[in-house]
Amino acid sequence: MKALLCYQDGQFKDYNDLSIPVADLGVQRGYGIFDFLRTTEQHAHFLDDHLDRFFASADAMHLPVSKSRNEIIDIVQTLLKENQLPFSGIKLLLTGGDASDGYTIQKPRLSIFQLPLIPPPLVLPEKGIHLVSRAYQRQLPGVKTTDYLMAIWLQPWLKEQGGDDLLYYNQETVTECPRSNIFMIDHDNVLVTPKENMLWGITRKKIIEIVDSIGLKIEQRNIPLEELYKAKEVFISSSTKRIMPVQRIDHSYTFSTASNNITRLLWDAFLNLEK
Amino acid sequence: MKALLCYQDGQFKDYNDLSIPVADLGVQRGYGIFDFLRTTEQHAHFLDDHLDRFFASADAMHLPVSKSRNEIIDIVQTLLKENQLPFSGIKLLLTGGDASDGYTIQKPRLSIFQLPLIPPPLVLPEKGIHLVSRAYQRQLPGVKTTDYLMAIWLQPWLKEQGGDDLLYYNQETVTECPRSNIFMIDHDNVLVTPKENMLWGITRKKIIEIVDSIGLKIEQRNIPLEELYKAKEVFISSSTKRIMPVQRIDHSYTFSTASNNITRLLWDAFLNLEK
Repeated sequence: MKALLCYQDGQFKDYNDLSIPVADLGVQRGYGIFDFLRTTEQHAHFLDDHLDRFFASADAMHLPVSKSRNEIIDIVQTLLKENQLPFSGIKLLLTGGDASDGYTIQKPRLSIFQLPLIPPPLVLPEKGIHLVSRAYQRQLPGVKTTDYLMAIWLQPWLKEQGGDDLLYYNQETVTECPRSNIFMIDHDNVLVTPKENMLWGITRKKIIEIVDSIGLKIEQRNIPLEELYKAKEVFISSSTKRIMPVQRIDHSYTFSTASNNITRLLWDAFLNLEK
Repeated sequence: MKALLCYQDGQFKDYNDLSIPVADLGVQRGYGIFDFLRTTEQHAHFLDDHLDRFFASADAMHLPVSKSRNEIIDIVQTLLKENQLPFSGIKLLLTGGDASDGYTIQKPRLSIFQLPLIPPPLVLPEKGIHLVSRAYQRQLPGVKTTDYLMAIWLQPWLKEQGGDDLLYYNQETVTECPRSNIFMIDHDNVLVTPKENMLWGITRKKIIEIVDSIGLKIEQRNIPLEELYKAKEVFISSSTKRIMPVQRIDHSYTFSTASNNITRLLWDAFLNLEK
């Protein structure tokens, strides 16, 4: 791979040399947080929002960050300038740091790296995806931890079911997909999205901010799985996908992407935000 | 630190050079398993049992192991011989491996390393520890994953409570401590330990195997937290501690270590196993 500049613990280095010692709690105890944002040319999309969430995650996990917000912005700008990637993803990774006793947070390790990323398409995908529901509640759901144990573990099962992605629910209430938030349009054309037990996605936040501008009402509330099955339109949102229509959830095929008019309106409004 | 030999992915190297790339699912998604065993001079305690559990954990997590059981035994023997540590811990760590898509298991990474360890005392500690109970269920509890997110996260809270360790319970039923199994002696002098939703500790297994030899009865069953509060003796077990008496759980101080006669019998019988 082309040498890409990255940052770790006060030093810039080649990405191929970027690794985490086994003594780091991020490796030995799965203790770490991250944030991930998309870039286009020299622009890091929604950097401020991602930094807000990164520092909130670090704080929630008792992990002091060795660099200030402005210092991190400078590092991100340096990577953008040096690596000159047309489209990329930048990850801010904060692991628990080396712990000689294997347990105690001493000095968290900050790693920031940029990798090429195929950008999402410029038009809303015609074909929606197939979600398979599964009862599961992420621990510390509001924090962007590195804990994707269940998501990875369930991949063979998801494949058996023929699904494209998982949809978690907690006591019959829909929460999120492993790496995306979920939205539905009900039969009164109201946009509805879960309000708890999930990650506060940046794309989710932006969608909520633009509904007014397209005359849409939004409700943040619990969504029973049974209600989602009967929704008019369903989509998921994430930084890498923007908005992705859903055409099937379990055995329910009620979502015709051809009629996803409101999803399309949201897509267009969202694209404008990125400009 | 003195250079210690370790193993990773087909190569022996210096422990100071042992690290995991950020692309490894063990780092980026907290996806990995391990096992940890204690050694005395050239002897690895209960190596067979630890290997059984290691391969079972790997299998449960869909992680193929690149080395056979006998090859791993050879690596362990090489470390024992080369490092010449009087007392140590050996960790077998299997991380998900590098995933270019950040999600898919391709080739898990096997790391085996040995570090000095202060051995547990040769007599049963006089002073028992203080456990603080907390409702929490580990995901995939029977698998020795690297997921200790909640245990590390709760350390500041545990300190506030003045406790030495956490005791997890699930719906009022005691399960385990983050790194130990729990046992109680009831007022009929029966040894009781949880039977589900916890890790199958090797020390726990050995204790269960020796009860017959000291004329003790054992029950593996659910233990309500309220019942544990009233037990005659309570202790926890782990590879690093062997057996550690518990003298307080939450606000219940019913355990006098001075009268921990059955715990002492078990300790003595267990010490004999290590010889």
